[in-house]
Amino acid sequence: MHQLLILAQDKNKYRALIEEARLVNLEFTTQTAEDVDIVLGEPSLIKAALASLPALCWAQSIWAGIEPLVGPASRHDYILTNARGVFGGLMSEYVISYLLAHERKIFKRLDDQKNKIWDESETGTLRGKIIGLLGVGSIGAEVARATKFFGMNVRGYTRDSETSTHVDKYFHDDDLLNFANGLDYLVSILPNTMDTRKIVNEDLLNALPSHAVFINVGRGAAVDESALIEALNQNKIAGAVLDVFEQEPLPKDHPFWRTPNLLMTFHTAAPSLPEDITKLFIENYKLFNEGKPLKYQVDFERGY
Amino acid sequence: MHQLLILAQDKNKYRALIEEARLVNLEFTTQTAEDVDIVLGEPSLIKAALASLPALCWAQSIWAGIEPLVGPASRHDYILTNARGVFGGLMSEYVISYLLAHERKIFKRLDDQKNKIWDESETGTLRGKIIGLLGVGSIGAEVARATKFFGMNVRGYTRDSETSTHVDKYFHDDDLLNFANGLDYLVSILPNTMDTRKIVNEDLLNALPSHAVFINVGRGAAVDESALIEALNQNKIAGAVLDVFEQEPLPKDHPFWRTPNLLMTFHTAAPSLPEDITKLFIENYKLFNEGKPLKYQVDFERGY
Repeated sequence: MHQLLILAQDKNKYRALIEEARLVNLEFTTQTAEDVDIVLGEPSLIKAALASLPALCWAQSIWAGIEPLVGPASRHDYILTNARGVFGGLMSEYVISYLLAHERKIFKRLDDQKNKIWDESETGTLRGKIIGLLGVGSIGAEVARATKFFGMNVRGYTRDSETSTHVDKYFHDDDLLNFANGLDYLVSILPNTMDTRKIVNEDLLNALPSHAVFINVGRGAAVDESALIEALNQNKIAGAVLDVFEQEPLPKDHPFWRTPNLLMTFHTAAPSLPEDITKLFIENYKLFNEGKPLKYQVDFERGY
Repeated sequence: MHQLLILAQDKNKYRALIEEARLVNLEFTTQTAEDVDIVLGEPSLIKAALASLPALCWAQSIWAGIEPLVGPASRHDYILTNARGVFGGLMSEYVISYLLAHERKIFKRLDDQKNKIWDESETGTLRGKIIGLLGVGSIGAEVARATKFFGMNVRGYTRDSETSTHVDKYFHDDDLLNFANGLDYLVSILPNTMDTRKIVNEDLLNALPSHAVFINVGRGAAVDESALIEALNQNKIAGAVLDVFEQEPLPKDHPFWRTPNLLMTFHTAAPSLPEDITKLFIENYKLFNEGKPLKYQVDFERGY
């Protein structure tokens, strides 16, 4: 019999959804115990419980980002799987939403409306614009598909995979500045790893055209926040849309609150919906119960 | 030899683009004259010139809407073609832009940012939402394709054609209120004809759920503006996004300027780009010069 511990704000919702599936050989427990072999939950809560879970075999993260659980000093003697394949649709809606908001000048038109100005100024289009995706995993592939649907020219910068057919041109390794050259939009979908820390730095921002807009839906740590503030203050780029930050919630005294041409969305781009995550868990539980390899296993060394 | 008169604000741009194509048997003229047989231009300017164009054979409108030139009392002894097939992409971007702005609460999040509020409130998604398209011509079909891409459930209300494969269910004739029942979004893409005048009236607005949002990218005349103001003031629907109006520019004393939950975009949804319209003109000119039927002919009686 497997013992499942759920460590999440929505734990009752998760339990109800999993109970509906009537999984075999599965019992629920509500606290850390010596015989708990499966945990489903938020990475930070799992991290805090690890020392009390000697029998842990498998932890399913309900989030994509699993920073608290990886790295050289982390415990490695269990299988860690994260949430993947469920955020692509929401992330695509988010990215398209802010790309179109920019092209359509929808904040300016609202201001004009408030001032009773009949503003017929020209509107832009996504068609033909060049977008660069920093990171082309399962979410990046979905964003590539959506931006391609609108006729954009799609570049991808990625460590290895070239699996998305919606990317027009791939860039790798030290070709980062060529990737950035001429972009209308730069979107970071990168996880937080040793390799991605502050990859969006002064050099990369300087390589962008001054009309470019930067969007971050990956992790805040991938951005050198000081360099971004400098780029926006000096109009080196036209704007930024940030969903994620080095520190969340953003401290009240952070300069981002008063940086020009910066929009913030407070880590809402792609929420983990219990319905979606439960489907993943159930699928993986069946594999686990049959002794088969699990889906979306995290490599503790790579960190994703 | 054909004599072409261009009647448009951008006439020099149009002339330069057409000259590049080196069309055979075509001469340009800069004023109304007895031998002008082709006009390319804005419907209202063509209307004003009609009496001085006795030899007119073909008029190509640079806009989709050709109200000034149709109706029972209008001159019928020439071929009128309008602009079609070029607005679908821009219209789709417009509609998707405001659908996502609503789901993503992007105006609210900007307000929260201004007030330094870390607003993690839930975000919506287009997936699974029900959208009703009033009018499924060439533009409607493009909007259907884009909304289907985002996983929406697409209904179409149309006079006859059922050609778009991206519409899940078609409605006709007196089935208008069933069409409206349960919609999350209602989008009018209707032209201004006798049959469409004030089709968006109190009955139709009452048939919508209170969380529904109405978007008008067709013609202002299709909406009973008083009924819409009433519906918004009484929260019978959640919001409206209007690109077109009975009278344009909107008079400064029009109640729309102070109606709650109303966004206006000042007839900017899908501008006629000379590059696009010139392609249409050139294609049609070649057919005209060879005595073949032209594309996008307007039926003077139906009015579109």
